[in-house]
Amino acid sequence: MKHATSLAQIGLANLETIVAAARTWKSEPHRKHLRDKILGMLFFNPSLRTRASFEAVMLRGGGGAIVLDAGNNTWKVEEREGAVMDEDRPEHLKEAVPVLSRYVDALGVRTFAAGADDDVDHEDRIIRAVERYSTVPVVSMESAREHPCQGMADLLTIEERFGSAQGLPVALTWTPHIKPLPKAVPNSFLLTAAARGCHLRVAHPRGFELHPNVIAEAQRYAGASVGSISFTQDQAEAIRGARVVYAKAWGPATAAGLPPESVRAQSDWMISPQQMNNASEDAVFLHCLPVRRNVEVAESVLDGRWSCVIDQAENRFHVQRALLEWLLN
Amino acid sequence: MKHATSLAQIGLANLETIVAAARTWKSEPHRKHLRDKILGMLFFNPSLRTRASFEAVMLRGGGGAIVLDAGNNTWKVEEREGAVMDEDRPEHLKEAVPVLSRYVDALGVRTFAAGADDDVDHEDRIIRAVERYSTVPVVSMESAREHPCQGMADLLTIEERFGSAQGLPVALTWTPHIKPLPKAVPNSFLLTAAARGCHLRVAHPRGFELHPNVIAEAQRYAGASVGSISFTQDQAEAIRGARVVYAKAWGPATAAGLPPESVRAQSDWMISPQQMNNASEDAVFLHCLPVRRNVEVAESVLDGRWSCVIDQAENRFHVQRALLEWLLN
Amino acid sequence: MKHATSLAQIGLANLETIVAAARTWKSEPHRKHLRDKILGMLFFNPSLRTRASFEAVMLRGGGGAIVLDAGNNTWKVEEREGAVMDEDRPEHLKEAVPVLSRYVDALGVRTFAAGADDDVDHEDRIIRAVERYSTVPVVSMESAREHPCQGMADLLTIEERFGSAQGLPVALTWTPHIKPLPKAVPNSFLLTAAARGCHLRVAHPRGFELHPNVIAEAQRYAGASVGSISFTQDQAEAIRGARVVYAKAWGPATAAGLPPESVRAQSDWMISPQQMNNASEDAVFLHCLPVRRNVEVAESVLDGRWSCVIDQAENRFHVQRALLEWLLN
Repeated sequence: MKHATSLAQIGLANLETIVAAARTWKSEPHRKHLRDKILGMLFFNPSLRTRASFEAVMLRGGGGAIVLDAGNNTWKVEEREGAVMDEDRPEHLKEAVPVLSRYVDALGVRTFAAGADDDVDHEDRIIRAVERYSTVPVVSMESAREHPCQGMADLLTIEERFGSAQGLPVALTWTPHIKPLPKAVPNSFLLTAAARGCHLRVAHPRGFELHPNVIAEAQRYAGASVGSISFTQDQAEAIRGARVVYAKAWGPATAAGLPPESVRAQSDWMISPQQMNNASEDAVFLHCLPVRRNVEVAESVLDGRWSCVIDQAENRFHVQRALLEWLLN
Repeated sequence: MKHATSLAQIGLANLETIVAAARTWKSEPHRKHLRDKILGMLFFNPSLRTRASFEAVMLRGGGGAIVLDAGNNTWKVEEREGAVMDEDRPEHLKEAVPVLSRYVDALGVRTFAAGADDDVDHEDRIIRAVERYSTVPVVSMESAREHPCQGMADLLTIEERFGSAQGLPVALTWTPHIKPLPKAVPNSFLLTAAARGCHLRVAHPRGFELHPNVIAEAQRYAGASVGSISFTQDQAEAIRGARVVYAKAWGPATAAGLPPESVRAQSDWMISPQQMNNASEDAVFLHCLPVRRNVEVAESVLDGRWSCVIDQAENRFHVQRALLEWLLN
Repeated sequence: MKHATSLAQIGLANLETIVAAARTWKSEPHRKHLRDKILGMLFFNPSLRTRASFEAVMLRGGGGAIVLDAGNNTWKVEEREGAVMDEDRPEHLKEAVPVLSRYVDALGVRTFAAGADDDVDHEDRIIRAVERYSTVPVVSMESAREHPCQGMADLLTIEERFGSAQGLPVALTWTPHIKPLPKAVPNSFLLTAAARGCHLRVAHPRGFELHPNVIAEAQRYAGASVGSISFTQDQAEAIRGARVVYAKAWGPATAAGLPPESVRAQSDWMISPQQMNNASEDAVFLHCLPVRRNVEVAESVLDGRWSCVIDQAENRFHVQRALLEWLLN
């Protein structure tokens, strides 16, 4: 059975097909290609774009969505194998997932990283368990390790602007924030852009390293795509001459043991017009949203000529449409 | 682009068209006039009638609705221009609204008055900002200043009963409550009834004045419609001979500086059969709901011969159906 | 008007028809038999299976569902006749239900037992009030006294496995839990299995008696169906030779005045393979879910050859589909 829970599982050939389909379909009349299909959506964390864009994909395609907030309007859910369930979580994924599989045609899951241990987050236990217990295709709506739909939307946005991502100089830069955020979005951008041959320069302060296993996977992709990945602690160096500037806050590598204050300390890492002027003349600015204005990114960048963040968010709809076509038809 | 965020923006000619269409359509077979349309609904506050009636309008019309609870299952939303977003609201309307506009065909917003300052509430900043940032039509599901769909449902209920609202003696009376409520409903009833030529008598205790700017707008409408508006602190005087008694609790004019207790103090303002017997023999009783039985209104009134509150709530469906037809087709 | 709020109100002849229809329809192509129908769903308590399965029934049948969480995204609701509503519940069922009845074709309600007084819970005041105020058919999504859709799904699961429930030796056994749970599920299983002629042995510790009125109703059904019901405090005796083992936690009879700890004290009542080996060779294990693994039931039972709990949950969909066909068409 197909699952779309990581880039590896989607597969690089399918990534290309899905993003190409999304790009073509944007200019065609909307077909009812998901007629009579139901997507079950299980949220362990809040969402705006993901919730609304997946629901819109299903409705516009002629199907429907069932939206469940785990622990809010549903029961809290346990995922540990062998747990003695005497705490506050009365339902186990081992029942919840097979049961939902009987009602719906595909199952979307959002489950953020806990952020206490990068190695644990890297294992992505909850979405792995959902996949194991599901009898229908599972689609990630962001898990601890990756956010593949975001990565595909990022890629579509770049390809629309520049024709192809191959060989493009791209900066992925850390930004300050008021608290440590998960790394699924930078992970997925790194993996996707590497798979499509970008020359990636990743900038972050010392202690905010991405997981070595994700980096190793991305390096493999870059090797195969004739792209490249380099890392720096100098934001200006990463941005210089870049045609894509991707900004995102994330938390420290837990192994680094940095205090929480470190996440907001580096206010000079905020993206401002000064930094963007250092990029290529035709550079675009990307961010997955939500974005904290004037903390992560100056509003003059978000409201300025560089910003593609609204198109990028719209592209969530288009890639998810193509992804569900691939998963379900 | 059309927006339905205030009576002024709908326009008085469209008000007449929409309410007339709603009245006609009630007796006709239900057409699938909203096929393939999606209404995005963004709630900053709770709702029963509004949520259910808008969803029903979309479903019965052949479309669908996407329901988002801001700050509950979605992110908390900032609306201030230029904010340094280092507090508890990670998403700005400036992103959320354009993004949702890409997924849906119209955007409904519910955002109650804060109640701290009538002048600020009168500016209706959140719905104004949504309107500014939206690239699709925006419909108010109650904002700080107005609740136009309620006003139109009120008018339809009156016109169904009496043929026309023109020249009808109508009482709008304040009622006690356990806490200060927003003024959007009395504002919208005042504006709508004035626009359609009612003779309005508004009764409330000293200190509970509606905003002068709303009153001025209503007086302009009354002048043009050959209706009239007067104010009194004598509830019996307002109700005497009225053919419509509209009861609603609202908070003090913030300029009046009344203590919160003032809202529940005046228990003799509760509407009871004694007051209704003072109205015209054929008088109807209206309330937008929810209503606190035996606090705002005696249950013998709500359950008695005067009450049209269930028909009035049903009419939310009918006017919203006609409104979305006007906005979207 | 038809209501599906208790087995008595559905009626035993209709029970047979509905479960038979569900069984037949499972193997047939899915018809759009609920086209243009809307089910309003009002939840006073959390739900996973009920919410998702009813929404799936409506979507697959060509209709739609409107899901409301009372007191979460809607107003808190008062149900007491004559209440002076000066507390935290601003909306009365007396308005909410007739209003929703104007927007939807049927109304589902979930309202758990309060658990403070079995006699009060037995009266099932909220769902009785909803029924009284509704102008459309009402369907129970579990109320204080019964969970008829669960009972019908249980019966379908038994009939699929054994052809007929008539004369089957069936054990309904109490299990430990971390807190007192409502009795609607054991009540409905008892009533439904008795109505279809099972030989029921009910096991629970002293003090966990079901309500005498429910037992009396079940005994009447058993008399008519040539089934039987007996009670024991010896779990092994109940399970010995049973072909169906139904496990469920529930709270003490309030009259018994047992302390809350009593619910988790009896850990030897947890269902383990040892107990199941005491049942018939071909015995099936049933539980309504959610289930606390290794508290109520050992995981080796839930994951073992006896367990039909996922099929049982799937059958919620099928019986509810047939039930809504009966209610609405």
